[in-house]
Amino acid sequence: MTALTKQLQSFVENTTESPFSIYNLPYGVFYDSNNTTPRIGTAIGDYVLDLALLEEKGILTIGHQRLFNHDTLNVFASQGKSVWSSVRRRIQSLLSIDNQELQADQALLSSVLIPQDKITMKLPFKIEGFSDFYASEQHASNVGKLFRGKENPLLPNWKHLPVAYNGRASTVYLSGKTITRPKGQLKPPDVDVPFFAPSKKLDFEIELGVFVGVGNPDGKRIRIEEAADHLFGLVLLNDWSARDIQAFEYQPLGPFLSKSFATSISAWVVPLEALQNVMVPLPKQSPACVEYLHQPSRFLPDIKLKVEIQPRNSTHKTMICETNAKELYWSLEQMIAHHTVNHCVMKPGDLLGTGTISGLNRENWGSLLEISSNGVNPITLHDGSNRVFLEDGDTVIITGYAETPDYKIGFGRVEGMVVSAVQD
Amino acid sequence: MTALTKQLQSFVENTTESPFSIYNLPYGVFYDSNNTTPRIGTAIGDYVLDLALLEEKGILTIGHQRLFNHDTLNVFASQGKSVWSSVRRRIQSLLSIDNQELQADQALLSSVLIPQDKITMKLPFKIEGFSDFYASEQHASNVGKLFRGKENPLLPNWKHLPVAYNGRASTVYLSGKTITRPKGQLKPPDVDVPFFAPSKKLDFEIELGVFVGVGNPDGKRIRIEEAADHLFGLVLLNDWSARDIQAFEYQPLGPFLSKSFATSISAWVVPLEALQNVMVPLPKQSPACVEYLHQPSRFLPDIKLKVEIQPRNSTHKTMICETNAKELYWSLEQMIAHHTVNHCVMKPGDLLGTGTISGLNRENWGSLLEISSNGVNPITLHDGSNRVFLEDGDTVIITGYAETPDYKIGFGRVEGMVVSAVQD
Repeated sequence: MTALTKQLQSFVENTTESPFSIYNLPYGVFYDSNNTTPRIGTAIGDYVLDLALLEEKGILTIGHQRLFNHDTLNVFASQGKSVWSSVRRRIQSLLSIDNQELQADQALLSSVLIPQDKITMKLPFKIEGFSDFYASEQHASNVGKLFRGKENPLLPNWKHLPVAYNGRASTVYLSGKTITRPKGQLKPPDVDVPFFAPSKKLDFEIELGVFVGVGNPDGKRIRIEEAADHLFGLVLLNDWSARDIQAFEYQPLGPFLSKSFATSISAWVVPLEALQNVMVPLPKQSPACVEYLHQPSRFLPDIKLKVEIQPRNSTHKTMICETNAKELYWSLEQMIAHHTVNHCVMKPGDLLGTGTISGLNRENWGSLLEISSNGVNPITLHDGSNRVFLEDGDTVIITGYAETPDYKIGFGRVEGMVVSAVQD
Repeated sequence: MTALTKQLQSFVENTTESPFSIYNLPYGVFYDSNNTTPRIGTAIGDYVLDLALLEEKGILTIGHQRLFNHDTLNVFASQGKSVWSSVRRRIQSLLSIDNQELQADQALLSSVLIPQDKITMKLPFKIEGFSDFYASEQHASNVGKLFRGKENPLLPNWKHLPVAYNGRASTVYLSGKTITRPKGQLKPPDVDVPFFAPSKKLDFEIELGVFVGVGNPDGKRIRIEEAADHLFGLVLLNDWSARDIQAFEYQPLGPFLSKSFATSISAWVVPLEALQNVMVPLPKQSPACVEYLHQPSRFLPDIKLKVEIQPRNSTHKTMICETNAKELYWSLEQMIAHHTVNHCVMKPGDLLGTGTISGLNRENWGSLLEISSNGVNPITLHDGSNRVFLEDGDTVIITGYAETPDYKIGFGRVEGMVVSAVQD
C-alpha cells in the first residue's frame, strides 16, 4: 500500500477490497424501512452513509442550503466543483480510521451507516435532458460496415464532431426495471408493407452516462477548457434498442421509438473527482478537430466494462462483452463543449450517453447488432442456447469498475430483464 | 349571427370581432406591475382575465386543488378533459352579458380584468419533453426533391408512420426572444474540411405546437380512440433551423445542434375545445395505415397561418408564406398514438411540433429552404432586398387564426428577431 491509501483508510470493515472504497464514495438516492423518505447517501463498503442525517445533525454542513435532504441529486450537483470537493473531503475525513467523530459514537454510527441490503435505491437525478452520443470509433465503424459496406464505414462528419442525437428523458429508468419488448412497425426486406409487431431485434448498448452538474445559461456556451467543471459524475447506461423498429423509422430524422421505450442506468453516481487517478491519455486525433473541440491533452477514465446475459431459469451468466471506457474517440469534455457551442442550454441533471463503447475484437463489441452481425452470427450461452438478439426472459447485466494498485472504484451494475410484449 | 353566438356574447367591449372572442379563451401565464407573481389568465378582447384571482375569491372553483395560482399551466392541464370543459364553461358564463357576477361589481371587475398592454407573458408550460414531427406531405416532398431528386421525394416510411425526432426542450422559448445566429461546423460542397463559423443558412419553420395535458404512465400507451382526451391545446411554433449545420451533422442520427439553439412558441394556448367548430375532415390516407394509427374519420383544425419578415430599419413586413394547419397528412391523434405505442411516457406540458406546414405552391411553403430551393431562388422583400435565408436584423412573425362566420379564434403571434453571432 502506498502512503496515500494509508492516509485514507476507513474504519468501516472490508472497504479496502470493496468496489465502494473510501476513494470511490459514489452518490445515490435511497430510502429504508425505518425512514421511507428518499434522501442522499454515499456507498462505503457494504453500507450506505446517510448524508441527509449527517447534515441534519450538523456534522456535514457546507454553506446554508440543505444539499442532501432531497429525493434527487440535482441541487447538490448544481453547487459546483468546490462544493463537490469540500463535501468529498469531509466525507472521507468522517469515514477515516483517524477520525473519531462517527466511530466513537455507536448510536450515531448505527443510525447513519445502513447496510446496503436494507435500502432501496431511486433514480439519482430528475433528468430533463438526455442526449446520446456515438463516440466509439469501433462501434461506428462496425455499424457502418453492416449498413454501408466496408469501403467507407465512417460518415464524413464522424471524425470532425462528436455525433449525437436527442434521446427521451422521460423513459430513463433505474437499474432493475423490467424491459417490456416494444412493438412497432417492422419491414423486413422480404415484405412490401410494414406490419405492427413486437420487435424481433431487441438489443442492449453498453454505454457510460455522464451527469451534468452545472449547466449553462441561455446565450453562453461551455468552453472546452472549463468543460470538466460542469460534469458531476458517471453511471453505467444501457441504451436498449429495437433494431428492426429503428431500421424502418430512422430516415431521415434519426432514431425515435426504437430507443424511447427505455434507457436504464445504474444507481450510484461516481464523481469525476474519484476517477482522477485512473485517467489515461488518449491518442492524438487525426484529422485535428476545429478549435472549439481542441484539447492540448485528452483523457478518459480507464473503466473496465462487462456485459453478461442470464437467461430465464438459468443460474449461469454468460459474459458476452468486455470493453473499456478509454476506447472512446471523443472525450467527455469534447461532448459537452460540442453540445453547447450553439448555446443549447444544459441543466443540472441532464444526462449525456457516450454511445455504445466497442473495443477491437468481437468479444469487445458492445451490442448484439455488432456481435451477431445484425442477426447472422449467433453466440452460444452457457446453457447451450444461441442468441442473435435478446429473448424474453433474458437479463442483461452491465458492470464496471476502475482500479489502481491500491483500491477499486466500482460502478455497481445496471441490469434489466426483458419481458414479452403486452397486448394493449 | 346564429343563436349560438347570441347565447355567448360578452359584456367585455369589442370581443365579437376580436381574435380573442368568448369562443376562444386561450390560457397563458402572465404578471403585471401591480402583481408580479406569475399566474394563469385567459385572453378576452383586449384584456386578460386573472383566473388566479377569481379562484382566490371563490368565484372560479373546481374541486379542491388550486389550479390557476401557478407559474405554469402544467397542473391545470393535467386535470383532464372534464375539468378543462367545466372551467371553460364557467369562464364563458362569467364573461357573458347575461351574467351579473363580474359586470355588476366594478371594483372586482377592474381587479380581474387587466388590459393586455399592461401585462407580461411567460412561457406557458414547464416543458420536459419536446418532439418534432414531419407531418406535412408537401414539406417532406419539397425537402426530398431538394436532397434526393424528383423521383422519390418521400422515403419508404413516410406514409406508414408520422416520422418524428426528439427535440431539445431546454431551448423552447417564448415569442419575442431574440435569436442569436448559431455557430457550428459548416462544410459547403466546395471545401474539403469543415470550418467553424456562424450559420449562413439560418431558417424558420412554421409549425403548430400541441401541448400534452394528460400523459401516460410507464407501461401504457395512448390508444388512438382516446388520444384527443390527452391533448390540451395548441400554439404557434417556429422551429428555427440552421440548414448548413444540419447538412453536415445530421447523418446518421438526425438533427441536433442545427435545431437545439432555439424553438419559439406563442404565449396563448388555444384549447382544443375552442377549435371543435373549425375542424375539417381529412382525405382518406393511402396506403391505409396500420391498426394502431387507424381512425374511422380524421380531422384537423382549419387554422390560417402566415409568415412575414420585417428587416431591421424597415417599417414594412413582407408576407412570404400563407398556409393552413389542415394541410397536414397526419392528425394530432395519430401523432400521440404513434409516440406512445412503444410505451414512451408522456407528461403534462410535453410539446409536440407538427413539423413545417407547407401548402401546394411556392407562396404556401413554410420554410426558406423550400421557398429559395436551398439558397438558389431568392425572394424580394418590400424594401427591395433579396432573401434566400435569414439575415441579421430580420424579424420573423408567424400569426394564425381560425374563424367561423360568427367569430374568430386567434393564436396571437410568435416572433423573433435574428441577431448576429457572438464571440464567446
